[in-house]
Amino acid sequence: MKKLINDARAVVDETLGGLAAAHSDILSVSFEPRYVARRGAPIAGKVALVSGGGSGHEPLHVGFVGRGMLDAAVPGAIFASPTPDLVFAATRAVDGGAGVLYLVKNYTGDVLNFETAADFAAGAGIRVESVLINDDVAVEDSSFTAGRRGIAGAVLVEKIAGAAAERGDDLDSVAAIARRVNASMRSMGVGLRAGVVPYSGEPSFTLDDEHIEFGIGIHGEPGRAVIPLEPADAIVDRLVTAITGDLPFVAGDRVLLLVNGLGGTPLSELYIVFRRAAQSLVERGLAVTRSLVGSFATSLEMQGVSITLLRLDDELLELWDAPVHTAALRWGC
Amino acid sequence: MKKLINDARAVVDETLGGLAAAHSDILSVSFEPRYVARRGAPIAGKVALVSGGGSGHEPLHVGFVGRGMLDAAVPGAIFASPTPDLVFAATRAVDGGAGVLYLVKNYTGDVLNFETAADFAAGAGIRVESVLINDDVAVEDSSFTAGRRGIAGAVLVEKIAGAAAERGDDLDSVAAIARRVNASMRSMGVGLRAGVVPYSGEPSFTLDDEHIEFGIGIHGEPGRAVIPLEPADAIVDRLVTAITGDLPFVAGDRVLLLVNGLGGTPLSELYIVFRRAAQSLVERGLAVTRSLVGSFATSLEMQGVSITLLRLDDELLELWDAPVHTAALRWGC
Repeated sequence: MKKLINDARAVVDETLGGLAAAHSDILSVSFEPRYVARRGAPIAGKVALVSGGGSGHEPLHVGFVGRGMLDAAVPGAIFASPTPDLVFAATRAVDGGAGVLYLVKNYTGDVLNFETAADFAAGAGIRVESVLINDDVAVEDSSFTAGRRGIAGAVLVEKIAGAAAERGDDLDSVAAIARRVNASMRSMGVGLRAGVVPYSGEPSFTLDDEHIEFGIGIHGEPGRAVIPLEPADAIVDRLVTAITGDLPFVAGDRVLLLVNGLGGTPLSELYIVFRRAAQSLVERGLAVTRSLVGSFATSLEMQGVSITLLRLDDELLELWDAPVHTAALRWGC
Repeated sequence: MKKLINDARAVVDETLGGLAAAHSDILSVSFEPRYVARRGAPIAGKVALVSGGGSGHEPLHVGFVGRGMLDAAVPGAIFASPTPDLVFAATRAVDGGAGVLYLVKNYTGDVLNFETAADFAAGAGIRVESVLINDDVAVEDSSFTAGRRGIAGAVLVEKIAGAAAERGDDLDSVAAIARRVNASMRSMGVGLRAGVVPYSGEPSFTLDDEHIEFGIGIHGEPGRAVIPLEPADAIVDRLVTAITGDLPFVAGDRVLLLVNGLGGTPLSELYIVFRRAAQSLVERGLAVTRSLVGSFATSLEMQGVSITLLRLDDELLELWDAPVHTAALRWGC
């Protein structure tokens, strides 16, 4: 294991220490209890968005705290859900009186812990709504999941729901928009080489030099099949076919295309993937109206990529374009 | 070799194809001759900035084409300088009549080819100034270099000089600011594991699991020494000591701290490095006034990091904060 770390048990806290030092204009970090909050939170009268989950997926979710996106993120240990008391502490810290929306990737631990935190919040008189994110079409049930997994599509839900909260929508409206985004998007990924989990020093999966995991999860958990390594275009075609066939996306749809690196994939390869995905969508009659290329929902230094497609309407487009100011996503005034 | 590519010889063109498809609002790509130009270029009366160099370092330089930064980038083959005719073609395409500034990382091939292109431009009546970027303190001469190498500091020169050109400075003034940035910054990196060059299928260097290359170049070329892998904080302290001692940076200086991933390093590790670097600078009495964390000047999927420190004054700070709209760096209105 070759990593730029100190103590494996300190990886999450030291990452947050760096995040706080680099972005004190955007966010602040509470270490005990551990959560990341938007600078200036709570914001009176604004619906607060809280997400979280295991660490090791950076910038997800801590890099998306800030204006126009999340009010708080609650990072657990590497690949481990944050406990309910931490989610509740973050909830209390950012509630501005208009209620709190939980954005929860569909993993059993996260679902359970955010549910328990919502109970704590109800007991404290804070209204909470929860939206499940389950964009990964690869498998129905998996190592840590009943139903479909939530992967990089979380970034799109957080951005768009965050913009809705920022413009002053109430809790039910923001929750409805988050559910609409989740219902309008599909994702799938492939893994070429695993990341190494700091605590164990072990790779999250093993593959020989000639195979890839088609439909990999963001913890290295299995997808649909181990298949031979193919040229990028063939791999992309498999992913696009699986994704577009699922919603289904149809000719005339305007879509946002997210090509997401899993941590150890160079940007050049992400653009090679984007090129073929965009070609393939155009051939199907879809209009690639917005794009995002980069490593946003990762799995340590895993080599691989996921593709997410979101069907846009005028409102989602306007919310996507709205200003955002976070460590990992930033545009607009 | 496990990569998301098609034909190894098509990597650069297909990367640019994806870049063009994803960012048609920002840039356009010419494939024959090959260069990337800012959308709307040439801009009459504005000094045009042109950079370039071998590919494999993405987003450098192609991801920095756009408003407030570069007017054109000229990517060569992987780790190979672009030929003079390509640099000249880009020069002609973006010259708006106020002259063209070449920003050239100090590698023998780049220096020679940009010089020849400047001769072509002079013959065509286009005034060109060149600024050499040589921020890497690791070694004086190296595999491809006489004098010091140019590495991630190029991003800072391009951003700040780009802002000066955008506000209407003339060619001599923009060149002077670019030289001031170069003279006010120092960088150094470490490599843990090499990237694999697509053409050859070979790693750019080899190291066992217990060692790192201290002072590595962005082509995997040797630095000062191969040393045992240490905790991140110890490695960062070595880098910060080498960098701060060189300018030298002194107590009271305001600095911009860039922690740059080399392509295969997860963001969490970059923040762990940032945390210690910022601590160490504060202990030396420096004020970390601006920060940038991410993978901006890479070496394929190399695992490693570089640190760049820029001494700020009021004008450089204002130019750094000015709006920028490129594929890889974006902020402001």
